[in-house]
Amino acid sequence: MRGSIPAATIARLPLYLRCLAQMELGQTTCSSDELALSAGVNSAQVRKDLSFIDPPGVRGVGYHAAALRELLRKELGLTHSYKVVIAGAGNLGSALTVYPGFAESGFDVVALFDIDPAKAGTTISAIAVRPLSELESVVAAEGITIGIIATPADAAQGVADRFVAAGVRSILNFAPAVLKRPAGVEVRRVDLSSELQILSYHLSQADS
Amino acid sequence: MRGSIPAATIARLPLYLRCLAQMELGQTTCSSDELALSAGVNSAQVRKDLSFIDPPGVRGVGYHAAALRELLRKELGLTHSYKVVIAGAGNLGSALTVYPGFAESGFDVVALFDIDPAKAGTTISAIAVRPLSELESVVAAEGITIGIIATPADAAQGVADRFVAAGVRSILNFAPAVLKRPAGVEVRRVDLSSELQILSYHLSQADS
Repeated sequence: MRGSIPAATIARLPLYLRCLAQMELGQTTCSSDELALSAGVNSAQVRKDLSFIDPPGVRGVGYHAAALRELLRKELGLTHSYKVVIAGAGNLGSALTVYPGFAESGFDVVALFDIDPAKAGTTISAIAVRPLSELESVVAAEGITIGIIATPADAAQGVADRFVAAGVRSILNFAPAVLKRPAGVEVRRVDLSSELQILSYHLSQADS
Repeated sequence: MRGSIPAATIARLPLYLRCLAQMELGQTTCSSDELALSAGVNSAQVRKDLSFIDPPGVRGVGYHAAALRELLRKELGLTHSYKVVIAGAGNLGSALTVYPGFAESGFDVVALFDIDPAKAGTTISAIAVRPLSELESVVAAEGITIGIIATPADAAQGVADRFVAAGVRSILNFAPAVLKRPAGVEVRRVDLSSELQILSYHLSQADS
């Protein structure tokens, strides 16, 4: 493990990749100012972030766009695809199962688990919904390292513990709960209500 | 506008609120160590973050849990409810429409817009799906200040521009696109693929 890149920088690398993908076809170079503008980050920050991955530059112009994209993809571990499982086949879990951006980025949802026996055996866009009791066997058989939690809050910790015991090392948690986790397991929270709360903070400040 | 709280602190305030809500019923005080542990943040950071909102403390014990919750809710502008609209009635937009956490936090989805005329007139859990052409009139009539974008990437900027022109001042963007925005409009991005990319970074580092 190198582990020398700050967490905030790592979190911005997918943003730069997204911005490069949004650039016009045929654009061969990209300046840090241009990338900064499209990412909504200042250019000193862009240069500092990218210095960690040392992209090939074009003197006085910026970066080779295609080379920078490749370097970002390599740094983010996106040179191969990942099989992913989702716990919770409710509205959100079902929507995530068919979310096109996952497959486009190389994350293939291979199974969906639900505690409701009535849902087991159904499919969502050809992905089988399986009983939660099969979580361990599927994770082991498929060699799953990334699990997504889309259960209600009170079920999330139990599912996280089972994911980790079965071999999952990275969890994306959509349940509105803060999870305890063992060292070495990475958890990212997407707390949908918190996002609106941060927006309401800004609204209330603007009004006061 | 006071505007003196750092953005990173603001982003953690909903997390502290979430942790306080997860604490056992009847717990009247809460130490910074306890809050730090449940939030996965170090306690110096918790104390620094909370110093901005100056919560009433109990000497040698910590904070009054209920008073701290109230103060956080007030600071985040959660003392009243907000009407919210969603653009994009696909799988994700539909799941967000019925996401229970929004209403629980005081965000009521009042309308959903879609460019597909076949979807207009349908309802999702009693919320009407309206043609995109009604976006401006609904935002004005309902006094909407928060808009959620759940459209494909290539439609997101157009919707954002229409939201802002109609009076929306805060946007939660789920489309995999980085939006340009006028000053004074707050945009939060939830980029689902980026979250998995950050997890894959950690997996690839652990393996190297």
